[in-house]
Amino acid sequence: MTNQTVGRPGLPADPRADVAEPSTSCPVEITLDALRGRWTTLIVRELLRHDHSFSELRQALPALSDKVLADRLAHLVRSQVVDRQREPGWPPRTRYTLTPHGRALGPVLQALWDWGSETPQPPARAATS
Amino acid sequence: MTNQTVGRPGLPADPRADVAEPSTSCPVEITLDALRGRWTTLIVRELLRHDHSFSELRQALPALSDKVLADRLAHLVRSQVVDRQREPGWPPRTRYTLTPHGRALGPVLQALWDWGSETPQPPARAATS
Repeated sequence: MTNQTVGRPGLPADPRADVAEPSTSCPVEITLDALRGRWTTLIVRELLRHDHSFSELRQALPALSDKVLADRLAHLVRSQVVDRQREPGWPPRTRYTLTPHGRALGPVLQALWDWGSETPQPPARAATS
Repeated sequence: MTNQTVGRPGLPADPRADVAEPSTSCPVEITLDALRGRWTTLIVRELLRHDHSFSELRQALPALSDKVLADRLAHLVRSQVVDRQREPGWPPRTRYTLTPHGRALGPVLQALWDWGSETPQPPARAATS
């Protein structure tokens, strides 16, 4: 765009890093979109620990409703983070695992964690959700 | 919580990593909250390049309205990412710079970028915003 964009530290040398407005093809937006929604990062955290059935996820996150869990899992499947696997046998069981790409969210969540844990507590933080 | 949480790779050994429901004091949520909102990451990108006046930010991101820019800057100031500095002299000018903590978002955005840029393009990605 301008020569101000050349050689700056910590920003990728990729034309997508120079977009002048929000774009769904921006890699940062793709990742934030995959993580969006209440509970999403907690579900990914559970699946980073080990794979789960639907009911095991409900047990690990007891305040999460079936509807929201199903919605978040469908979003994570669409975002190529989660794989849904039917297990053979009866009763029918589905296991949820992270895809290899989903597993690569580990360091991303770590980076998000590290920055947030170093955020000084403001004098009066309004509780927002 | 259970011994499944001990020694897992890539997750911090911190009691906040074991919360069973969304919490505004979770470090991951603090970071995602700082980055939330359309345009927010683009404004941080501009300020990672160099500090800006309000009108320079408007020039760098021409499709962004004054109202949304003012809103996003106020949010980033509250989130301790951006510092607002009155410059002496006339006409009054305000410069926006990243705080040291805001500057530390560089590696976080890089981690978000890296994951998103490795996300395989799905067959038909619905355009959402």
